[in-house]
Formats: sequence, structure tokens, C-alpha cells
Amino acid sequence: MSLLPSLRAACPNATVWDSTELASRDPGFDARNFGATALVRPVDTTGVAALVKFCAARGLSLVAQGGRTGLTGAAATVEGQIICDLGGLNRVEEIDPFARVAIVGAGTPLSVLQEAAAAHALDPGIDLAARGSCTIGGMVSTNAGGIMAFRNGTMRHRVLGLEAVLPDGSIFSDLTRVLKTSAGYDLKHLFIGAEGTLGIVTRVALRLDPVAGASATALVGVPDAASAQRIVRHFLERTQTRLNAAEILWQRFAAAMNRMLGFAPGQLPLDAPCLLVLELGADSVEAAREALEDGLAAIWEEAGIVDGLIASSVAQAEAIWRLREETEMIERMHHLPPSFDVSVPAGGLDAYVARIEAGLKAIDATYAPYVFGHLADGNLHISINTDGPVPHALHEAIEDVLYEGLQASGGSFSAEHGVGLDKRDAYERHVDPVKQALARAIKEMIDPANVMNPGKIIAG
Amino acid sequence: MSLLPSLRAACPNATVWDSTELASRDPGFDARNFGATALVRPVDTTGVAALVKFCAARGLSLVAQGGRTGLTGAAATVEGQIICDLGGLNRVEEIDPFARVAIVGAGTPLSVLQEAAAAHALDPGIDLAARGSCTIGGMVSTNAGGIMAFRNGTMRHRVLGLEAVLPDGSIFSDLTRVLKTSAGYDLKHLFIGAEGTLGIVTRVALRLDPVAGASATALVGVPDAASAQRIVRHFLERTQTRLNAAEILWQRFAAAMNRMLGFAPGQLPLDAPCLLVLELGADSVEAAREALEDGLAAIWEEAGIVDGLIASSVAQAEAIWRLREETEMIERMHHLPPSFDVSVPAGGLDAYVARIEAGLKAIDATYAPYVFGHLADGNLHISINTDGPVPHALHEAIEDVLYEGLQASGGSFSAEHGVGLDKRDAYERHVDPVKQALARAIKEMIDPANVMNPGKIIAG
Repeated sequence: MSLLPSLRAACPNATVWDSTELASRDPGFDARNFGATALVRPVDTTGVAALVKFCAARGLSLVAQGGRTGLTGAAATVEGQIICDLGGLNRVEEIDPFARVAIVGAGTPLSVLQEAAAAHALDPGIDLAARGSCTIGGMVSTNAGGIMAFRNGTMRHRVLGLEAVLPDGSIFSDLTRVLKTSAGYDLKHLFIGAEGTLGIVTRVALRLDPVAGASATALVGVPDAASAQRIVRHFLERTQTRLNAAEILWQRFAAAMNRMLGFAPGQLPLDAPCLLVLELGADSVEAAREALEDGLAAIWEEAGIVDGLIASSVAQAEAIWRLREETEMIERMHHLPPSFDVSVPAGGLDAYVARIEAGLKAIDATYAPYVFGHLADGNLHISINTDGPVPHALHEAIEDVLYEGLQASGGSFSAEHGVGLDKRDAYERHVDPVKQALARAIKEMIDPANVMNPGKIIAG
Repeated sequence: MSLLPSLRAACPNATVWDSTELASRDPGFDARNFGATALVRPVDTTGVAALVKFCAARGLSLVAQGGRTGLTGAAATVEGQIICDLGGLNRVEEIDPFARVAIVGAGTPLSVLQEAAAAHALDPGIDLAARGSCTIGGMVSTNAGGIMAFRNGTMRHRVLGLEAVLPDGSIFSDLTRVLKTSAGYDLKHLFIGAEGTLGIVTRVALRLDPVAGASATALVGVPDAASAQRIVRHFLERTQTRLNAAEILWQRFAAAMNRMLGFAPGQLPLDAPCLLVLELGADSVEAAREALEDGLAAIWEEAGIVDGLIASSVAQAEAIWRLREETEMIERMHHLPPSFDVSVPAGGLDAYVARIEAGLKAIDATYAPYVFGHLADGNLHISINTDGPVPHALHEAIEDVLYEGLQASGGSFSAEHGVGLDKRDAYERHVDPVKQALARAIKEMIDPANVMNPGKIIAG
């Protein structure tokens, strides 16, 4: 039997697309996603296991895909490969409002879980701009962080348990629903952030948190990141409100976003060297606004605040958030601009940005990066103002500027986007060799035939 | 050269004790801790690596020890083994108040780190009764949880990076200082909770959190755990204060503690079926007390509160906490009572306690467990009112009652004490076989000669 009929026979409840059908579909954020010979969309863990066994027996490799919003090519496929699309496992199976736990299928979009949790005044505690498309399984597999990580941790800190299909088709089932477990090696952490190279995550038990009743948003102009961090520390120390978000936009990024989005000048304080977006949760909107006002007034001089605006309406708060989140505006100005995602230890943000500005200019006098990100955890997103992809040697030179000394200082060359294909060189050049050797040994032990997403993270 | 002189030559900066010296010393919480042939106390990671290489070359096995406060025999040693005492790595190397990060040696006691952090109005976010003795390395190795885990997570969620010596003497160095990293497999999680079987943790980078300015404590009598949980949910939803602790004491435990500690009757509301200890953080003591009063009043009827007391002084708050924390009182009434540490999914606490009361009574009509624990994360500590150790078959029968259905319901037979030697049978009987097989394969790959703490967690 040829491949497609055999696949259909082996996965009776699954949707199967061949390469012709794939070519007519939207591959998501990465044109390489749909290079495979076929896509199979099972509807449950057993179905995924059947697909894995089919592929393992025939020496076919398998690439798991969720919302296809990944930014490092971790879901890219080539001819001969099979896509395991988790879109059929897209159910919020259970919300336990008393235990504050959700059980969800890996293919569930984040926004669907957010809505289901909100019905119980709960929240998954992780939020990111791609919320409408990205899936829980994909977020687990890249250890997504997003806007609230500084307070709630990354995906790794939200996962209580998970179920995954291993490369031999056996099912690793650990749907623990409690936070505290010290019952032997906590092996679920191997699958979190492994980008589908060690197993395919099919179901997840997640912590939920009670949401603050209301919130208020401010946009604050500051001279530098250190000033913005003083403001953040001030609000973190206040127990009467809850800091929901602290996002930073360097001026060049803010100005470009403003141009593209067409906000009227003067409407928002956009001229400062850095802009800080603050969201504060409280028991009422009035309390949140008042606390923002009082807090900013108290820290105004010490932090050297240039200007500030507290959103007086939902529409104004949304305008502030669009300025931060509609980052596809940058991609409208530049075709596939080289983009990066680093974690910088808190004290070093201003020095880091000054260093890369200079280093990039030394490569090309026209280079002027757009920089923005999650201030309270030091996660910066950086795009270069040029069309991509750039030649390999140039890309490496840019990476050298951006990643130099980052690991040694305790930062990370990939904060929340993962390694995939596109950061594999960086991984090989910047990660401790002892760690790389151990990672490779684990990959070879768990997936000796290299069935699962070969060549991602670790060269195959 | 015989063993001791060779050890001293191989580890020139380390303190070395032979078995005679060990016999004259305090072995800590477990009499089995000092059964080894020798103890070596290096002063840095390089010294630990030298000791590991020495042992690996001679086929000697090595058991890491911190504060020797473990409760499952994970640090027990026998003749022929060498103890690697981390007490020489007991420095708070750095507190970065700006980044809210601490770098500490594995042998640092928790209370020492708490004090160093408090000088910057910061806190490691984990607290437990053994704070004066337990060490950061031991807490990492058992994934300790304690009182604040429901809010801040367990040790696993607090560790940003760590350094560990592998069984071949190589050094795994990942002193990441940022929260967000998605740069390949996050292998530090293999060492967290591994009880020293995969490597010896030597240095740790930990998150610190700003502390609430002030707090207030209440003792609340309630009819059952469900009622206590309604109270907790009420306070978790309020953003104007921060719930620091929510501990539950079932009546039998509270009454025994009260008898032993000699509190005068009537002074505290001790007659209810369950007692809830609440600690609320706020910007001032007055605000915390007021929020406790308002919150309890608001939920009083709905939660069916029997009685309540808000501590009006530091001394009274301490008295309430002694009632919860001085659990060695139970050990004064019974010699080595069989003790357990389970996580129960939130909705099932009352049914669980009722079921084990009945099940234990069916084994022995005199059995009446002392039950207390961390309400907000479902972590219960249980001691049986009998002298121990009890015969193996009886112990197993007790475990069957306590652990029945626990894993299947999403709970854990070991919440925060680990597996060690004493819960290995339970591990083998209750953990998913696929998970056990994967754990064993990882142990055999990383430590093929079984140098590191053999026989703990996984039978060697």
C-alpha cells in the first residue's frame, strides 16, 4: 500500500492531507511549515500514539504542530516527513474552579482556555500576543513566557502535569493536578521546552489563578530602562495592588509603531527615550487608577519620569496595548527582518542596548534595531531594520553582537522563542558543552531512531 | 595508601572525618545518616569534583548531605560509602537587589539566605519549619515546598540556575539568572528533586521576591476543609492584600499540640473540627488586620465559620504558628510514628481524610491519625498515633490506605519529602511504569557506575 492510504488505514479517526492539499493551505508564521509529505490530525492521545507507531515502524519522522506561530522554524518540515497536527485535540476537557486546575488538549488555543477560565474568574496566568492562534501544546513545547511571566513564571511553572506520546509510541501519562510533588525525577520537565524532539505532548494539566477584579493601564515616558525598573520595583513592593504587566518600548520601536498605527501626535507621551506600559490589577478600576496615580507620583522624581498617561477609558488602554503588541507592523516595514529574543539580567539592560546599538552600527552604519520587551524579567525582543533573510555570515555576525557574553552573565540567547532550526548555530556556539553533550545523550536515549522532529535544537 | 590518607591527599582543602569521628557526631534527623566510612567536606565546586573523581575511580559511592533534615532516608549511608558534606559551600555569594536574584552555595541554610535577602526587603519565597538547619542544596534536591508554595511554587519554581558535579566529575554549569530561557532542554530540572542520584548540586541561582511590608495572623475554626478552602479562595481573589500562608490543622492534631505546648484553654479557638491558620500580608499591620477582619466577616456565614481570632500581638501570632510548626511534639508522644506526606487534589480533602480515618481504623481500631498541612496546595502531613518503625507488612497496609487512588486522581504520594529509601516501595507500586522505566534509563545513562547515592529513589 502506498503511504497515504496506509496512513489513513493506520489512523482511522484522523484527518489526513497530502502534499497537494498542504500546498493550498496557510502554513502559519513560517512558510517552511508545510513542506511535509502529509499532515495527520488525530483526535486523541491514542490516535497520536497510532501515528507515532506507524512512523516509527516505517522510519518516517514526525513533526508536531500546534498553532504554527513559532518563530524559530521548530515546526518546519521537508518532503518525506509527516506532520502530527494537534488541532484535533482542542478541547478544554475540564476546569476545576475549586482546585483551580484546567485539563486541556494540546491543540487548544490559549484564548479558548482564557475564555473558559474567565467564566470562573480564573486565568491561566500566561498571556502573549499570539493568544488567538498559539496552542497550549506549542506553548508547553517552547516553554512560552509572555507578558505575565515575571509574576507567574513561564509555561514550565504553570504545568502541573502532562501526557505525551514517546518516540516508540508508548504513552507517558503524568496528569498530576497538584503543585507539590516530589515523587522521583519530575520527567515532565524533559518534554517542556523540548520542541517536540522527545515526545508529542497531547494533554496538559495547568494551574489557574484567580484574576484581579479590575485593572488600569498607564504609559510612562522614562529616560532609560533602569528608571523603568525602579518604577516596577516600587509597584512590586506595594501589596495593595497587583502588577499585571510591565512592558518596555525603546523610542525607535515606539515611534515606528506610532507611525504605522497612525496615532495622533500628542495623544500619548511618545517622545521619551523609553516607554513603559504598566498594567495594575486591583479590586476596582477606580482603585487601580488611583494606585497608578499615587504610585507614579511617589516615584516620579526618584525615577526621573519624563511624562505619563493613565488610560481613562478601555479604548485608550487598548490603544496603548496595540502600540506594544501589533508587532507585525515592523514586518510591514521590512521583509522578514532578522529578529531575536534574549533574556538580559536585570541590572544590565541599558548597557546591553547601548552595546548592541554600537555593535550593529559597526557591522552596517544603517543598522538601528527596534527593541521592546518584557521589562520585569529582562526579556527583550529585537528586530533589525533590514530585509531578510540576510546571508549566513552576516546573520552570524549580528548574533555575535547580540549574544556576546550573554550566557556568561546569566542571560539567555533564546528567552521564549526556542531554538528550532534557526537558533541551532547559536545553541552550538553559546551553550555549555557539558550541557550540550547531556542533551544529545538524552535525545539519543529517548529517540534512538530520531523519529521526533529530527534536527531541531540538536543537529541530527 | 589506605582510604583515609588517600582521601585527604585527593581533597586537600576539605575536612575529612573517619567513621569513629562520625560516630561521635549528631547525624541529624535520621540515625542512618552517619553509617558511612568517611565524610568529606569540600569548600567549593572544584573540591566536590575532585572528591567525585576520586570515588568514581575507586568504585566508591557518594552520598551528598546538606542539613540532614530529610525525612525519607535519602541521606542514609552504609559502610563503604563516602559522604559529600556540602556544609563547606555555605556562602550567600551574592544578592542582586535590582535583579532580585541570589547566588548561594548549596550548603547555605535557608534561614541564612532569608536574613541576607531581608536586608534588601527581599525573600526567597519558600519557607518551612526546618529553616534553621535545612540547606538550599537539600531543598533543591528534594524540591522542597513548604508554607508559601501555593503562591510562589516549590523550589523547582524558584531555581533560575544551578551548578552540579556529574557522576564522572565533570561540572554542569548553568547559573542562569533570568526567569525566561527556552534555549534547548532545561536540564537543571533533572537535578532538582533527584535527591543527589544524578549529580551533586553545588551552587544555585534563586529568584527573590519583594516582601510584603507587614502581616497579620488569624486562627479560624471551621467545620471542614471545604469551608477553609472557601475562605482561602476569598482571600486569593482580593488584590489589596497578599495571602502569605493558609495552613490547616485537623482537630486531633490541634488538640495534641495544644496539650503538649500547654496553651491555656479558651485562649485560642481550638474546638472546631478544623483550624485554619491564615497569614495576610499588607502595607501595614493595621491594614493586614483590618483586611483579615473584613474578609472573615464577609465570608463568615457562607463558609460556616465556627470561631475566629486575629492575633493582636506578635506573641500571639507566634503562639498560633507554634501550634502548627512545633510538630516534634508528636514525636514526643510517639516514638518514630509512621509519617506521611501526600498531595490531594483540592476538591477531595474532606473525603480523603474521612476515607483514611476509616481505612486506618480497619487496620487497627486504635489508629487515629494526626493530620495537618498546607491547605492551599492540598499538601497534607499525616502521622499515625503509634510507635514506629512498624513491621514492613503493616507499613505497607497503612500506605495502601493512604495512597490508594492518589496518583490516579492527580495527587502525589510524596508531596515534598521525596522518595529516598523509605518511599521506594511506594514509588515502585504507585508510579506509572512508563515513567519509572524512563527514570531508570536516565539514571543508568548519567550514572552508569551508580556512584551517586545508589539505591535512593530507584533500586540499584
